[in-house]
Amino acid sequence: LKTTVRIALDAMGGDKGPEVVLKGAYDYLRDHVGNGVKLYIVGKKDLLSGIWGSFKKTAGYPIEFVHAGEIVGMDEPISRGLKKKDSSLAVALRMHKLGDVDSVVSAGNTGVCMASGVRSLGRLEGVSRPAITGTFPTLKEKSVVVLDVGANVDSPPQNLYQFAVMGSIYASYINRLNRPTVGLLSIGEEKVKGNESTLQAYKILEKSSLNFIGNIEGNDILTGKCDVVVTDGFAGNIILKFGESIKTYLFTKMRRQVSSNLFSRAGAYLLAPFLKRLKNTFDPAKYGGAPLLGVNGVVIISHGSSNELAIKNAIRVAVRMVHEKVNEHISGKLAGHNIVENVKS
Amino acid sequence: LKTTVRIALDAMGGDKGPEVVLKGAYDYLRDHVGNGVKLYIVGKKDLLSGIWGSFKKTAGYPIEFVHAGEIVGMDEPISRGLKKKDSSLAVALRMHKLGDVDSVVSAGNTGVCMASGVRSLGRLEGVSRPAITGTFPTLKEKSVVVLDVGANVDSPPQNLYQFAVMGSIYASYINRLNRPTVGLLSIGEEKVKGNESTLQAYKILEKSSLNFIGNIEGNDILTGKCDVVVTDGFAGNIILKFGESIKTYLFTKMRRQVSSNLFSRAGAYLLAPFLKRLKNTFDPAKYGGAPLLGVNGVVIISHGSSNELAIKNAIRVAVRMVHEKVNEHISGKLAGHNIVENVKS
Repeated sequence: LKTTVRIALDAMGGDKGPEVVLKGAYDYLRDHVGNGVKLYIVGKKDLLSGIWGSFKKTAGYPIEFVHAGEIVGMDEPISRGLKKKDSSLAVALRMHKLGDVDSVVSAGNTGVCMASGVRSLGRLEGVSRPAITGTFPTLKEKSVVVLDVGANVDSPPQNLYQFAVMGSIYASYINRLNRPTVGLLSIGEEKVKGNESTLQAYKILEKSSLNFIGNIEGNDILTGKCDVVVTDGFAGNIILKFGESIKTYLFTKMRRQVSSNLFSRAGAYLLAPFLKRLKNTFDPAKYGGAPLLGVNGVVIISHGSSNELAIKNAIRVAVRMVHEKVNEHISGKLAGHNIVENVKS
Repeated sequence: LKTTVRIALDAMGGDKGPEVVLKGAYDYLRDHVGNGVKLYIVGKKDLLSGIWGSFKKTAGYPIEFVHAGEIVGMDEPISRGLKKKDSSLAVALRMHKLGDVDSVVSAGNTGVCMASGVRSLGRLEGVSRPAITGTFPTLKEKSVVVLDVGANVDSPPQNLYQFAVMGSIYASYINRLNRPTVGLLSIGEEKVKGNESTLQAYKILEKSSLNFIGNIEGNDILTGKCDVVVTDGFAGNIILKFGESIKTYLFTKMRRQVSSNLFSRAGAYLLAPFLKRLKNTFDPAKYGGAPLLGVNGVVIISHGSSNELAIKNAIRVAVRMVHEKVNEHISGKLAGHNIVENVKS
């Protein structure tokens, strides 16, 4: 029998307001009746319970409202966001730190989420630097895990190795892959191609027990050449945001051109279900949450533009992270190891 | 009256063989009769003249075949490619070095092209490091110039500044933009967001005479937020290759899903012209060539998968680079300037 998983949901984060966050929570609970998950919904209590009350048949849903008076704005600078000790995010993280919940899910300001997540929970034993983990679609049936997508600006080789370990464990337990393949994002497939950091990381990775397939290039991400893509947070963040912009780009172009012609309009009508699927393929909402791997806790950062589905998926990932004890696996692999030695050997 | 522009075309490069390269050259000359361009087509002479002979009405076209016995393979390592002194690429570059032509166009091995271009022609006065310049589509009517997309692995701030200068001049004279806007690719819009190199480059750029708009993020490339995107060759190369892979990704997905359903097939038929345009928008062939800016000469590296149109466009860009004296403008701006001083002031 599984024990209860307790999740604090920052209900004031996200571009679309608390209605959408709560609807996502509602959808999750409706589809997972009796699986032992309890949600602590954090934010302006009166507002939130009012919204919740507007949903149908909520009696018996395992939720509890927790009041937090402040809100971190989506565009608020990190330094200012960190100072709000009574924000819904800060309250949720404090609950996690104190052991009152097992995980925090937020669709709030990514930078503040990341910084206060690391600051309040600290790092997992053995981890030098936490990483944000993004998910990209691929031409294969499975998606690919990319990390770091923005928790760090520079990543020394030892950190890239740790990202590889964390990504592999995540892909194993959350994406249920057996010995996931790991690629190092670089500018050529040969071992000698890359910057200082990737050249060193290559040497560590090829000697590691990971299923390392070598360098991959930018065009190998969407083909699904490997299950885990390791990169520094600078290149990773740029590629994540570029990837997210493809959806808007394609559909703006499509709208403009299709609307100009009757045949095109008819075609678009017939193709609508397919076009929608195509659009969703680049939609971050599909994957729901980017876990902040390497912190001493389970923090899922959902995209600011998250819809109900994204929130629902973020909760689902949080629950799996707790059930599968992903953090224990990471610490088990990294704690007590002197990584620098691996390079010299 | 314009003087003759002489271009050496490496006809043995490219994934699709010399037929496509020659057809591109033929198409260019057919559409630009009497504009004073002469093409030197370099490679296995018998083979090339045989292909040329199969085209219609070629009499009077200003071409000359130049024999070169070796070929640099598309996947050949740079070190080995550089050793082939009688390759079509090496012969073309030698002609340029000796002043027999004004420009070299090649769809060959990018790495070898870049390395031997720099090695044989040297750097333009005032330029620390040449950069490969890529072109991306945007939601606006104009495309965006991105550099460096792979000539360098690490780029100190002074080099990023020089990329900005070269990109601005290219956008002014080739894309005919008045005071093109320059954005620095980073992981946040604020001045304090970025890695060591971008933070310093920001300080140089904001004091420069360029039309600098600050940091941009990965999602700002396709929206056309600026005309020139400055980045190091590592992130630039990854984003270029990722961008190129979108076309294959989208149309593989589309083919798979559309073929499964009669309504979708009908829709796809009606939408065909639009879908083709959409596909082309991410097609590197549309832009034809990536100039290697900063070398003492005009070298246009066309994408390995170039079709006739790409070759034709690459020749067009080469001709404009020569006519507009882009290199003189770059040297005029960068030669004799102590860039490091700009940082300290």
